[in-house]
Amino acid sequence: MPKYEIQAEPGSHALAMTATIKGPRKLVFQAYTDPEAIPHWFGLDANCTRVDAMEPRHGGRWRFVETAPDGEEHAFRGVYHDVVPDERIVWTFEYEPWAGHILLEEMLFTDQGDETRIDIRSVFQSVEDRDGMIATGMEEGANQSLNRMEQYVAGLK
Amino acid sequence: MPKYEIQAEPGSHALAMTATIKGPRKLVFQAYTDPEAIPHWFGLDANCTRVDAMEPRHGGRWRFVETAPDGEEHAFRGVYHDVVPDERIVWTFEYEPWAGHILLEEMLFTDQGDETRIDIRSVFQSVEDRDGMIATGMEEGANQSLNRMEQYVAGLK
Repeated sequence: MPKYEIQAEPGSHALAMTATIKGPRKLVFQAYTDPEAIPHWFGLDANCTRVDAMEPRHGGRWRFVETAPDGEEHAFRGVYHDVVPDERIVWTFEYEPWAGHILLEEMLFTDQGDETRIDIRSVFQSVEDRDGMIATGMEEGANQSLNRMEQYVAGLK
Repeated sequence: MPKYEIQAEPGSHALAMTATIKGPRKLVFQAYTDPEAIPHWFGLDANCTRVDAMEPRHGGRWRFVETAPDGEEHAFRGVYHDVVPDERIVWTFEYEPWAGHILLEEMLFTDQGDETRIDIRSVFQSVEDRDGMIATGMEEGANQSLNRMEQYVAGLK
């Protein structure tokens, strides 16, 4: 299973995550930007995700809703700030019950032949926001999503 | 003249600026959110600023254009992520020629009777982005704007 390497220096506003997955960059980028793709990989394994809004262009909005097995909904939203095909996405990210705590996230995709390196660089409004996010078990969730994305991309080929 | 106290620890993604100006919080907030107000105070003293877009609500866009004495235009844009009347604004900020380098900025307004404290907390996508912004002479520009805002607010009363 692919895994993120996480870098979070104590006291910093920043968080960096890097992983390399199987699959060409074009398809990985597609998995990130195609509304049809999101339900296949975004979120925890045990949850279902639907796309309420997704406009991957400067100023476009997104909103994804995860439904847990007990029926509880967890909604995430944000705005795309930069989308460079196959290369880069910058968006903001909010967990709606914690609205107003916004993080700015850059995703970079690097072509490594049959594999793609994903670099995610986030900055949080405060060190507390960042540490709070890490404490939610974000790493486990991110790795579950990454694994499902790799499987999804394999299925596209 | 009011002045920002600036805090920028070496190697950090964050920048904090604090100032206290004359004028009640309600009017200071209005100066930040009323399109009619922006040309009165935003930007360098020697420039004129026009508002191309300004929708101060979650997901709303803004775009301000400063025109220098030589006719050169400098455009800034972003998206409002949170607007709490009289209290808080969160927006993203981009200088268009440097598009894709985005900063996330929180502005907090604290009532201090006849005065208002403004706390601006910014996070940049990289330490280099932050240091580059500081090197542009941002501080001088911010203080010019702050001074004009105080004068504008005084005129509203």
